[in-house]
Amino acid sequence: MFVWGVMAQLYYHPFCPHSRFIRIVMAEYGMEPEMIEERIFERRQEFLMLNPANTTPVLTDGQMVSAIVGANVIAEYLDETRGLALGARRLMPEDPAGRVEVRRLLEWFNSKFFAEVTQWLLQEKVFKRQMRSDQGGGAPDMELVRAARQNIRYHLRYIGWLVQSRNWLAGDTMTYADLAAAAHLSSVDFLGDVPWGEDEAAKHWYARVKSRPSFRAILSDRLPGITPSPEYADLDF
Amino acid sequence: MFVWGVMAQLYYHPFCPHSRFIRIVMAEYGMEPEMIEERIFERRQEFLMLNPANTTPVLTDGQMVSAIVGANVIAEYLDETRGLALGARRLMPEDPAGRVEVRRLLEWFNSKFFAEVTQWLLQEKVFKRQMRSDQGGGAPDMELVRAARQNIRYHLRYIGWLVQSRNWLAGDTMTYADLAAAAHLSSVDFLGDVPWGEDEAAKHWYARVKSRPSFRAILSDRLPGITPSPEYADLDF
Repeated sequence: MFVWGVMAQLYYHPFCPHSRFIRIVMAEYGMEPEMIEERIFERRQEFLMLNPANTTPVLTDGQMVSAIVGANVIAEYLDETRGLALGARRLMPEDPAGRVEVRRLLEWFNSKFFAEVTQWLLQEKVFKRQMRSDQGGGAPDMELVRAARQNIRYHLRYIGWLVQSRNWLAGDTMTYADLAAAAHLSSVDFLGDVPWGEDEAAKHWYARVKSRPSFRAILSDRLPGITPSPEYADLDF
Repeated sequence: MFVWGVMAQLYYHPFCPHSRFIRIVMAEYGMEPEMIEERIFERRQEFLMLNPANTTPVLTDGQMVSAIVGANVIAEYLDETRGLALGARRLMPEDPAGRVEVRRLLEWFNSKFFAEVTQWLLQEKVFKRQMRSDQGGGAPDMELVRAARQNIRYHLRYIGWLVQSRNWLAGDTMTYADLAAAAHLSSVDFLGDVPWGEDEAAKHWYARVKSRPSFRAILSDRLPGITPSPEYADLDF
């Protein structure tokens, strides 16, 4: 018997929000891939062969010729190959209008939120600690950190606005959109940079996503030299 | 009778590569949307209601409640709702592995190539001309232009490498990947910034895509004050 979960390998970084999104997604599908930590700033030759764009996450499943590269591409692939098995818990709606909205929000969080918030906070506060100085490591640029902390407030209000008119971010059921948004927020929350007090609706929505069993693994991530914020793993924060 | 093509409206900018991709795609589907030119730096309130991310393209089709936002989202929607009608000319493969590769390359060109090449050349050489100084307009920053011109050489080699082992970028048939890559190159080619002499395979592939009838409309785009490069609309360049 061929067991997909055993053969699958996920190249990831513990604080890469796109990797976190896929880890949560795979947990929702009941998959337990072999986890391979990748530090993209090391530009490892074998990894570049899998993904010349040198980004995480990358999934290999032992069946396909090439690797499955990038969070959105992996999410679409998993929905196409095992979405139906989730039944009513399927993470992509079946109607075209619902799919349009989920994909719009996937772009919003995985591209826009990343470019305006997650990228800067992680680069300055996490990755620069792991890099040698010749790789670009060093002290955080606090101007970039402050800009990201300013930007996140608008996104938090947008989340709050969406979930006040809907049950979940993209509609009546939980979808990839919720998991992607929560993955990014979890990376930032580890660093203590989410101003939860500013939007009650967003906070309640995050508490709902965070309490899912699929979230457990990322809440136990730890980073040498950085203490997570007190509310990071607290389900009743 | 309800005629989809007549009701559809495409919010676009003539030199936005993501808009160009969707214009070519819609022409492949035989659709003729009403074209609405959007200058995102004007931050028009009505457009922000359609797309709070304030990016082009946006498609409204008269059937859906909300707008269809973003090039990749529109491409997926059109494939889902009218892909089968194209028969053998369908722009997304039907097998999961083929779809993974098309989506990987869509990300490559619509995100990575855009961030490293198209964004800078268009911002500095096109959009800054259209903006008032209080909108960020002014003379181009030639350092950014030079960096983009340097970056494009690697992408051109990557295209050449792909089409030397395959018939089209993602495999045996023409797909969204070819149309997205060619859309970005067409914007840059208008400005004369594609070093075609450096990769014969890439040049021949582009000549094939460019000669499709779906490409005609974008080859006739003109911009006040900028003369297109001599080879821009030449099918035997």
